[in-house]
Amino acid sequence: MQYPNNIKKNFTRLSISHSNRGMDLEHVLNLTNNYYLKNDRALIFKKPTPIGVVDVSYKNQHKTIEKAYFKEQSTLDYNGLYRGKYIEFDAKETLSKTSFPLSNIHEHQTVQIRNVIKHGGIVFLIIKMNGIVYLLTGEDYIAYIDNNKRKSISYKYIQEKAYVIKIGYQPQLDYLTLVDDIYFKGE
Amino acid sequence: MQYPNNIKKNFTRLSISHSNRGMDLEHVLNLTNNYYLKNDRALIFKKPTPIGVVDVSYKNQHKTIEKAYFKEQSTLDYNGLYRGKYIEFDAKETLSKTSFPLSNIHEHQTVQIRNVIKHGGIVFLIIKMNGIVYLLTGEDYIAYIDNNKRKSISYKYIQEKAYVIKIGYQPQLDYLTLVDDIYFKGE
Repeated sequence: MQYPNNIKKNFTRLSISHSNRGMDLEHVLNLTNNYYLKNDRALIFKKPTPIGVVDVSYKNQHKTIEKAYFKEQSTLDYNGLYRGKYIEFDAKETLSKTSFPLSNIHEHQTVQIRNVIKHGGIVFLIIKMNGIVYLLTGEDYIAYIDNNKRKSISYKYIQEKAYVIKIGYQPQLDYLTLVDDIYFKGE
Repeated sequence: MQYPNNIKKNFTRLSISHSNRGMDLEHVLNLTNNYYLKNDRALIFKKPTPIGVVDVSYKNQHKTIEKAYFKEQSTLDYNGLYRGKYIEFDAKETLSKTSFPLSNIHEHQTVQIRNVIKHGGIVFLIIKMNGIVYLLTGEDYIAYIDNNKRKSISYKYIQEKAYVIKIGYQPQLDYLTLVDDIYFKGE
């Protein structure tokens, strides 16, 4: 289930060189979530990008959008149900080798991360940086921004706190195995 | 948070007479969910309607959709987090006084309802019929379609099985109080 309009403003096409073609993070996550769905492991979907419709037309009762603009998501892009728990995350990619720019995460998304933690859900960021895909928990993300004035997360912090998601065949990006280790320890 | 493009094909504007103007089910649910959010009671959002983009234009780096069409949601329209649990539902309105046409619920949505139950989430339908707003649990919905060949749910069944959601001031449609009674008994 992929939406052609889901290419983020701050998602840089340039980050997909010939060498890692097919590692488009969103595409790989969609394949992974479809795999989880087909194998009855989890129900996780990417939310459609919200749009503001300016103009529509009707032809024999068929409605077509003639003009619209993209809006910002009020939540993170992915959410769903895993092992009876609510799970929500976003996936971000940066070309920077030294730090993850916080401009990638909008203020209302940070509010949502705080809220999901408060209401007892699982929330994290999947960050692709230096060719490695990391899982940074919402708790570690909040701890960082609450204790730093900086406009970016240092790569050092990500290397220290985040978990590396193994890239495989099926599923291609098995982040739920990490979620088991991080959030379901001893269950 | 309302999306002008979220008016369902099978949502009938005619159902809003002058007498119950302002009882547009989607609008009232959006107000209710905003109230829950502001009062820190739950995190429940309506998913944007997925679209297929046919044509876009760029003007000084601003992306505009020039042509697109509406797609069907693979899940129910509303989901989120309440009291640590995953919650998902859809809201449907019918003008029929005697039965709720199952054409209102797409096959993949019925699959999703079965899956949410299987994975331990809370799932239900909010049905407005005969001026009353009902909550029908996913379990009672599945029990009906698995035991009936009919293309609609009789109003009698809805009256027997579904719970009436009180219409109030703030929140306007306090369905979570019913969710407490139905799903959190004795907690």
